[in-house]
Amino acid sequence: MDIYFDNSATTQINKEVLEEMMPYLTDIYGNPSSIYSLGRRAKKGIDLARKRIASSLNCNINEIFFTNSGTESDNWAIKGVALANKKRGRHIITTSIEHHAVLNTCKYLETEGFEVTYLPVKKNGVVDIDSLKKEIREDTVLISVMYANNEIGTIQPIKEIAKITHEKGIYFHTDAVQAVGNIDIDLKDLDVDLLTYSGHKINGPKGIGVLYIKQGTKITNLLHGGEQEKGKRAGTENVPGIIGIGKATELATEGIKQKAIYLENLRDKCINGIMENIPDTILNGDPVNRLPGNINVCFKYIEGESILLMLDQLGIAASSGSACTSASLEPSHVLLAIGLPHEIAHGSLRLSFSKENNEKEIEYLLTVLPNIVENLRRMSPLK
Amino acid sequence: MDIYFDNSATTQINKEVLEEMMPYLTDIYGNPSSIYSLGRRAKKGIDLARKRIASSLNCNINEIFFTNSGTESDNWAIKGVALANKKRGRHIITTSIEHHAVLNTCKYLETEGFEVTYLPVKKNGVVDIDSLKKEIREDTVLISVMYANNEIGTIQPIKEIAKITHEKGIYFHTDAVQAVGNIDIDLKDLDVDLLTYSGHKINGPKGIGVLYIKQGTKITNLLHGGEQEKGKRAGTENVPGIIGIGKATELATEGIKQKAIYLENLRDKCINGIMENIPDTILNGDPVNRLPGNINVCFKYIEGESILLMLDQLGIAASSGSACTSASLEPSHVLLAIGLPHEIAHGSLRLSFSKENNEKEIEYLLTVLPNIVENLRRMSPLK
Repeated sequence: MDIYFDNSATTQINKEVLEEMMPYLTDIYGNPSSIYSLGRRAKKGIDLARKRIASSLNCNINEIFFTNSGTESDNWAIKGVALANKKRGRHIITTSIEHHAVLNTCKYLETEGFEVTYLPVKKNGVVDIDSLKKEIREDTVLISVMYANNEIGTIQPIKEIAKITHEKGIYFHTDAVQAVGNIDIDLKDLDVDLLTYSGHKINGPKGIGVLYIKQGTKITNLLHGGEQEKGKRAGTENVPGIIGIGKATELATEGIKQKAIYLENLRDKCINGIMENIPDTILNGDPVNRLPGNINVCFKYIEGESILLMLDQLGIAASSGSACTSASLEPSHVLLAIGLPHEIAHGSLRLSFSKENNEKEIEYLLTVLPNIVENLRRMSPLK
Repeated sequence: MDIYFDNSATTQINKEVLEEMMPYLTDIYGNPSSIYSLGRRAKKGIDLARKRIASSLNCNINEIFFTNSGTESDNWAIKGVALANKKRGRHIITTSIEHHAVLNTCKYLETEGFEVTYLPVKKNGVVDIDSLKKEIREDTVLISVMYANNEIGTIQPIKEIAKITHEKGIYFHTDAVQAVGNIDIDLKDLDVDLLTYSGHKINGPKGIGVLYIKQGTKITNLLHGGEQEKGKRAGTENVPGIIGIGKATELATEGIKQKAIYLENLRDKCINGIMENIPDTILNGDPVNRLPGNINVCFKYIEGESILLMLDQLGIAASSGSACTSASLEPSHVLLAIGLPHEIAHGSLRLSFSKENNEKEIEYLLTVLPNIVENLRRMSPLK
């Protein structure tokens, strides 16, 4: 049995998406900057992708920029706005539970003379709006708050934060890598200045990302070179990747509300099954205000990694938190930020569902997981 | 007839390369940072690609880093070394004929307090070694000279420059985007500190690049975030792209000397045909010391763009210079740097061959090109 419960780490490319990419991986290989027919056909593909994304997220086509990843988009948004506006001020506000693409970019800017405030979050992982308001200063130029957390799934009040930010004339960026395709996003209504997402989290290809930049936003380039992307992002366009993220965005945002209901149903069934059958288990994040397909629990007395290895032997792919930090032995910064002690944070399990998952798979998990936890606890020196 | 003479702009993915990529675009979609089987299989693919590249270019596997493009590699090499070594000095030397990924990165660093010397080149496009030696200062931390020029094809004496640079304890980077796959490169013998190249120029995919970083080189990160690439380059790995550039590097460097002879033969046949049949034509770059598949000529009295459109109508894809700057109306900075006046630089045609091209295609070009030039000249107000 092969069960994939790690859709927050990455996803399989949708067949329709790959089908649309194939001509650009074979015959339409021209450089989109070239003026001959083969180049113009590649250029047309990019135009179509941009149009699809603008239409799916309700923004203007000239506000969509292609990057190579969510990480590049985060780096560009934060460094780009910070550097372009440094004469106005050098203070940035973000949260303590951001993805490392945001956190480490902020830490880098600290070495370059910027000051960064890392907001605490409440026990459910939601940013404290009052402390946000208090931390805004005269020299704050950028606020960056993730749309939904990649580990515990908590969804932030992005529209409200964008409003507060704009009342003070500050730019607002949101890392929406986990949100696009899971939450209905209307950029004109949301009114953020910058939004990051990535192809491979929405059943599109790896190696491609998007940065939405609202018209009029003052931002410097991150990658310098040729005149691609209206002179704002250099490098020969990854045409198949762009085609892929265009189609994937269209598919991921279609019928998103029904999809969310389907996922919430799977999620809640699974949460209930775990909580009822496995004692000493903590559900991390907000019980309701969370990504439709996200579960994050801590099993006391055991290590998350051991659970993963046992699940893997049974054909179930899951994670203990973010894949990007799996090389590190530190417990999750997110779980520590919501107040868990080290020894409990080490016992985390994240399950993230997609619409390819079904009840049968959940039932199978629920038949094997209690035994795995029980066996590991029996061997645990902590118990 | 479809003839592609623009292989310096981009290339078609080799069938074998795409075949190796396909499993990673479909079944092996795991995140290489994940510890379960699907993730480990993706990780194994990356390891294999790195091994192939290290073996093809003769370096250690831990010296190969994956980026999204030649542009990102150039940006990383130059900004990364400049910022990491700024306490030692803030002076950089490069040439006036670099790709814009190098030139515009240097210009950006000038706004951040660095000083950059842009070396002139001789009429054939070769860097003047004496002027290089003269420009080296106490505070020079980095020298960046391209291996082979993307427009006029001139090959630089990279090994000699690396030696001079190292005698002064300065880091040396070369943009080898046009060189890899055309020139036999042995990194241990060449002894550069950093080398940039890109997948889509060597019949690999778009959206993937390599930066070779010699062990011990002091360099800061360009993209901050997760722990990928030993903590040096963040972002979920573009696994299919990495597989692609790995295989493409292997194929492009196999039998490279015979391939060069084949291309030189095509090139010289074509150059002779053009020079004999079209009066008032200038061959740009060095007649001998140039990329095996590169031709760059200027036809007096006419515009390069008009030639391209006429060729396109006959099914021939060619360019007037770099695709990356085709959005700009300025004449090529390379042609100006080798001393051509504006009005002549505007009449340039670049043809770049791959081993997929053949003599028949050259013969066809030689039957149509003289007429195109003659017709355009007849209408030209310059003549």
